[in-house]
Amino acid sequence: MFEIGIFSFGDTYPHPLTGARQSAHESLRDLIDRIELADRLGLDFYGVGEHHRPDFSVSACSTVLAAAASRTKTIKLGTATIVLTTDDPVRLYEQFATLDQISAGRAEIGLGSGVFLESYDLFGVDYEDRKWIYDEKIELIAAIDTSEKITFGSKSRPPLDDLIVWPRAYGEHLSIWQTTGLTEQSFERAARLGLSVQTGAPAAEFDRLAGLVATYRNKGAERGWKPERLKVALSAHAYIGDDRRKALDTFFPHYQAYVSNMRLNRGKPAPTREQFEETAADLNSNIIVGDAEHVIAKLAHQRARIGHDRHIFQIDWRAVPQADQVRAIETLANEVAPALRKQTTATEAAA
Amino acid sequence: MFEIGIFSFGDTYPHPLTGARQSAHESLRDLIDRIELADRLGLDFYGVGEHHRPDFSVSACSTVLAAAASRTKTIKLGTATIVLTTDDPVRLYEQFATLDQISAGRAEIGLGSGVFLESYDLFGVDYEDRKWIYDEKIELIAAIDTSEKITFGSKSRPPLDDLIVWPRAYGEHLSIWQTTGLTEQSFERAARLGLSVQTGAPAAEFDRLAGLVATYRNKGAERGWKPERLKVALSAHAYIGDDRRKALDTFFPHYQAYVSNMRLNRGKPAPTREQFEETAADLNSNIIVGDAEHVIAKLAHQRARIGHDRHIFQIDWRAVPQADQVRAIETLANEVAPALRKQTTATEAAA
Repeated sequence: MFEIGIFSFGDTYPHPLTGARQSAHESLRDLIDRIELADRLGLDFYGVGEHHRPDFSVSACSTVLAAAASRTKTIKLGTATIVLTTDDPVRLYEQFATLDQISAGRAEIGLGSGVFLESYDLFGVDYEDRKWIYDEKIELIAAIDTSEKITFGSKSRPPLDDLIVWPRAYGEHLSIWQTTGLTEQSFERAARLGLSVQTGAPAAEFDRLAGLVATYRNKGAERGWKPERLKVALSAHAYIGDDRRKALDTFFPHYQAYVSNMRLNRGKPAPTREQFEETAADLNSNIIVGDAEHVIAKLAHQRARIGHDRHIFQIDWRAVPQADQVRAIETLANEVAPALRKQTTATEAAA
Repeated sequence: MFEIGIFSFGDTYPHPLTGARQSAHESLRDLIDRIELADRLGLDFYGVGEHHRPDFSVSACSTVLAAAASRTKTIKLGTATIVLTTDDPVRLYEQFATLDQISAGRAEIGLGSGVFLESYDLFGVDYEDRKWIYDEKIELIAAIDTSEKITFGSKSRPPLDDLIVWPRAYGEHLSIWQTTGLTEQSFERAARLGLSVQTGAPAAEFDRLAGLVATYRNKGAERGWKPERLKVALSAHAYIGDDRRKALDTFFPHYQAYVSNMRLNRGKPAPTREQFEETAADLNSNIIVGDAEHVIAKLAHQRARIGHDRHIFQIDWRAVPQADQVRAIETLANEVAPALRKQTTATEAAA
């Protein structure tokens, strides 16, 4: 079973051409409408991601997802991504176990260490300490999920001495995902703790990613974890239209506005139109722009190489209008997902 | 306008007679069903309160309330109470501003310093420090609500240096309530910061409460706060049936199970049936057990003495069945609230 999902941050940047900008209310309203639509059309997952700046409406992930839980029936609701380093594993577990109870087992939590720096300032964590703090907190949340009473001598938050974290997950465990780059250590930890993995790779690193995923699955199975605890998701930046050429034209200003800003922060130049077209054309890349046929071909190619379980698409980039996002969800649900499922079933039957 | 509301903790204690016990899933499901019912029948407020123990299903308040927001239209959604002392004012503001944006202005946050000790252990706060920490945190959350960019040199959490907390409230401000006992200092602070007040008093202290409320309103008005920022709510433990005598009989075991446990924790004896009946019969008391007529008479009496804006009822005590709670909500919405509104309008017209 190959899953298709969406993730959003509630982007409220001004439109790169018109300057129009959504309020936080409009952004959250449209986001929850999209989650409802994705559920109705049978997509598998919708994730939201945390920021703490006026450019994005989502800072409190479980609050947004709980509002969506009441308007959906089968879609899994998770995060891509929560900044674990600056949050409290105990509070997070309580929030997502509550979401899991409310949604009868549809909650997931995706945890990373963040790209933007706001949460480090806001919650008083030194960015230089992010590695050891993340390491400790991911061990802690996995430990909380394992047993109702917990003793854990952490340094990044107050230690826990034989305490109960409540409520518990709806089923046997909470679905915990580690968002990670291509480091062996992260994949090894995920295999050891039975955490699923959400990742992405530049086109040039695709072979290395395939190797890491294969090793992760083997090591996780050796540990005795069931396959549902060893899932792999790839993320893509996407714009999906009816015509590939038109999609590239429409999406470029949004892409450029977003990536320029990210690159300028790091002192790098903005991407040119040529670079964008080249990246989008590369079957290994995580920029997916085109019509259904193109998306299906690219996903089938990546699925054949990585063997991942889920592909998730960020479609609310820099003021891409709601109507365009709705069309992308419709295309993913009505054309892409059925085609991929058919291919996956055929491959699995042959194997 | 006199408001009637409900508050719940998601009580999952065993039934005192049958031993039957709800799961967290069942408890949250029934709770959100009750919020939906209260909204449909036109009650004004539903609050949830935080605990961290298997006896209660609510630990993550904004998560539960957001699920309710999607199923309701006009009811205000708040807390009674969040343990501010062991939580982070920045996260809380983000969560409740998000709830406010999602519900188009229906979020409220009620903040106290807690009765149970679990959250102090779980979040590493020394109970002995609760006073100064609460004092600092209530100032901080009020400051966050006042300005988008905040500088605040707190000691109970990392200081904030010219940082943005996002999203903001839907309207001009977030409705913040201070849950307080009968201390002058708390009422004075609420008047100074423009916070509403949720309180309760033993029958013997009713006169003192009336005086504190009158002073609070005067001082708040002197500060220039609008009346909607100076609201007063009283809380009651309630069981409402069709027949007063039957209500007393049915409710006593639930009441005794709850209060015994609380008192035994403090080394005091359990209440006797006589004590219970006496307290329930006292028009000044906050134990309200009876039929609509009794509830109306008691509320009218208390309203005449205190002049408060809202009365909120805890009706999920120790496994009181959902059907009984539904009847209580129906009685409050269909009989009590209209009678009180009529009396209030008549009083206001006369004044």
